[in-house]
Amino acid sequence: MQFVAAPVRLSTADDTFEVEFSARLHWSADTDAAIEQRVAGILADVRERGDAAVLEYTQRFDGLHAQGLPSLELKASELQAAFDGLPAAQRDALTAAAARVRRYHEAQKKANGESWSYRDDDGTLLGQKVTPLDRVGIYVPGGKAAYPSSVLMNAIPAHVAGVQDIIMVVPTPQGTKNPLVLAAAHVAGVTRAFTIGGAQAVAALAYGTQTIPKVDKITGPGNAYVASAKKHVFGTVGIDMIAGPSEILVLADGSTPAEWVAMDLFSQAEHDELAQSILLCPDAAYIDQVQSAIDRLLPQMPRAEIIAKSLTGRGALIHTRSMEEACEISNRIAPEHLEVSSREPHRWEPLLRHAGAIFLGAYTSESLGDYCAGPNHVLPTSGTARFSSPLGVYDFQKRSSIIEVSEQGAQSLGRIASVLAHGEGLQGHARAAEMRLKS
Amino acid sequence: MQFVAAPVRLSTADDTFEVEFSARLHWSADTDAAIEQRVAGILADVRERGDAAVLEYTQRFDGLHAQGLPSLELKASELQAAFDGLPAAQRDALTAAAARVRRYHEAQKKANGESWSYRDDDGTLLGQKVTPLDRVGIYVPGGKAAYPSSVLMNAIPAHVAGVQDIIMVVPTPQGTKNPLVLAAAHVAGVTRAFTIGGAQAVAALAYGTQTIPKVDKITGPGNAYVASAKKHVFGTVGIDMIAGPSEILVLADGSTPAEWVAMDLFSQAEHDELAQSILLCPDAAYIDQVQSAIDRLLPQMPRAEIIAKSLTGRGALIHTRSMEEACEISNRIAPEHLEVSSREPHRWEPLLRHAGAIFLGAYTSESLGDYCAGPNHVLPTSGTARFSSPLGVYDFQKRSSIIEVSEQGAQSLGRIASVLAHGEGLQGHARAAEMRLKS
Repeated sequence: MQFVAAPVRLSTADDTFEVEFSARLHWSADTDAAIEQRVAGILADVRERGDAAVLEYTQRFDGLHAQGLPSLELKASELQAAFDGLPAAQRDALTAAAARVRRYHEAQKKANGESWSYRDDDGTLLGQKVTPLDRVGIYVPGGKAAYPSSVLMNAIPAHVAGVQDIIMVVPTPQGTKNPLVLAAAHVAGVTRAFTIGGAQAVAALAYGTQTIPKVDKITGPGNAYVASAKKHVFGTVGIDMIAGPSEILVLADGSTPAEWVAMDLFSQAEHDELAQSILLCPDAAYIDQVQSAIDRLLPQMPRAEIIAKSLTGRGALIHTRSMEEACEISNRIAPEHLEVSSREPHRWEPLLRHAGAIFLGAYTSESLGDYCAGPNHVLPTSGTARFSSPLGVYDFQKRSSIIEVSEQGAQSLGRIASVLAHGEGLQGHARAAEMRLKS
Repeated sequence: MQFVAAPVRLSTADDTFEVEFSARLHWSADTDAAIEQRVAGILADVRERGDAAVLEYTQRFDGLHAQGLPSLELKASELQAAFDGLPAAQRDALTAAAARVRRYHEAQKKANGESWSYRDDDGTLLGQKVTPLDRVGIYVPGGKAAYPSSVLMNAIPAHVAGVQDIIMVVPTPQGTKNPLVLAAAHVAGVTRAFTIGGAQAVAALAYGTQTIPKVDKITGPGNAYVASAKKHVFGTVGIDMIAGPSEILVLADGSTPAEWVAMDLFSQAEHDELAQSILLCPDAAYIDQVQSAIDRLLPQMPRAEIIAKSLTGRGALIHTRSMEEACEISNRIAPEHLEVSSREPHRWEPLLRHAGAIFLGAYTSESLGDYCAGPNHVLPTSGTARFSSPLGVYDFQKRSSIIEVSEQGAQSLGRIASVLAHGEGLQGHARAAEMRLKS
């Protein structure tokens, strides 16, 4: 069988270059609707039926029959036996590769937000180049609630990261501009700003239009249309997390004035009827005091209706057996905002594994963090603090690995790569490494 | 109007606690299908018609009429004027908040992958706690191509980050286990492993089943079903980027043996018919040599058919006016793998802004990086290197902001927060700050 490999030949000097180049570049990530639908069905089924569903699909798609899912576990002894049973060359190559990968990632863990590198004894250079994104879009809500603080919290980390172009979009319904939002854009170093919003603004930033420049990443909160649009364009551009309703969890040992805690619960509840305010406390009498403070303070609040709906519909005052138990429950919730309203906040802080932001001590009301303490107020919601982080400088940087293998390094690395590549059936990879070996 | 705020009262000592607690916690992020559909229409329309579409939607949804999109730009002078026109208290609060947010994020930029903090003069503590994820899932493909190297590249950064539970899933069609994959799991520190795959494995990891533990994040490549499933469960768990076809771009000045470059192009093309291999070079005669090398070497390759289809269908040999121009084009592509096959790689490296991994010099074949140089081989594809990074230790860590405001700090911060909160119409936030002020 004869095959022909004829890559297209282009020249930048040709008039047709731009058209031909763009045509060749285009690869559409559009997913197949039929696949989407089948996958949605499988996900729902596994969610519903657990082991039984996984077992059935494994039988159907992989032709693998088993009594139950536990029997599909590969025990540590079987993994060890697989390793011991490999030819020595493969065993050694795998071990050497793992050691090198481990060393590199240990260096990465110690690195700060700047570029870093190290050299092997044979002169091989390894590292990572950290660079700011070229251009980002900041979505600022401008309808019911206009939040100038969100301008600061999105634009400043981008600016500190070194992003050159920070494009803000903010809807101005009926042309009403919020002076604080505009002033915040001035203070925060926004490059250009447009009074557009909704899904159409997200689309304009993601794809670019005649007037709106195409950006590399879009951050900032918005309504259901904005959230849906951001999800759609994810991949074409980067996005930050999709925010759910805001949440506060207060861990109280009873030492903070009950009115302070009640107001902290209000300050979350007033955002939105779906916002969630939870108090965890081992002192039942103190919980009574907080409920009394709620009753006393509520009529004074301009947003009393929203607060009442939020607290009644989604709030909870939970009596725990101990502060330790309260910390465990907090970890299960992984709240966006976590106040440790205790005389001994540093006793409990080490027990708290998941939270967007942790507010320690009676004086640290969440609202200070929302506006001006310094940390970002864009935080993971809906339990996503288990795996994600506050918006930060790192969200506006990206990294490129740097590898420069010396002639000598190519000898040792080439032998390892050759063994592993043949093991994966990728002979081109193996040959590319072998060609660099001195005979 | 009288409102009642009655958060539910729960006690962990009650038998019904688990049920009532779970019921209250549940907040479904399911998006409205009607919204999804309308948003998809808006996105397609803006992509197609640009400015005109954005203008129409802005008119329809925001009631904002304009001659053209350019007139919706807020000029820098207007932002400045908004700032100048604010009452002094708001202007000062905004400036003070911005300065504090900036200082915090500058400290964040300098921080490494460990927890960090600093204190203000008044004793206020600010920082960030960096912790590993509790439990992650690693998807390892096991069908047509089994990649033990992917086990190393996914599991080792998780292990270095300090993740306690690393759960691997790998399909074993017809029960065929790949010893190298199992051995790699042994070497890389995988905690538990199951022979399941496809969307059902992703679902099991995301939701948990009787046998498969629920994880916090799922990483690793897979087919279209796996990619679609990961997209679906994003939010319930974290995911890494969805990988597109693999890509290599070689920037060559003509100093590397043409056969080496040809084989490096093959090593990408052999993955997949959709893989993309591109050569950029200012030397037309050298491009001819590479094509000759391709013709000469192709018949020797076991995967010649895939290589031929990939190179002919998606490959390109591009003659540029200069190496500088080649660097510019590379930045437009933002390739996954970027080889700088030049005698002076460090001359060109600073011009290269976007790439997953940069391979410097003739001896640095991409395949060395794929297997054993040390850096991760899970890299951003399809131009996403503009905004995303290689898989790394940071993908298996999350951060929680730490804020402890001193009594004295609560005085200065409280005044700033109060002004800004009133400016946003959030009186609960303002009152929570004001309550901490000494009268």
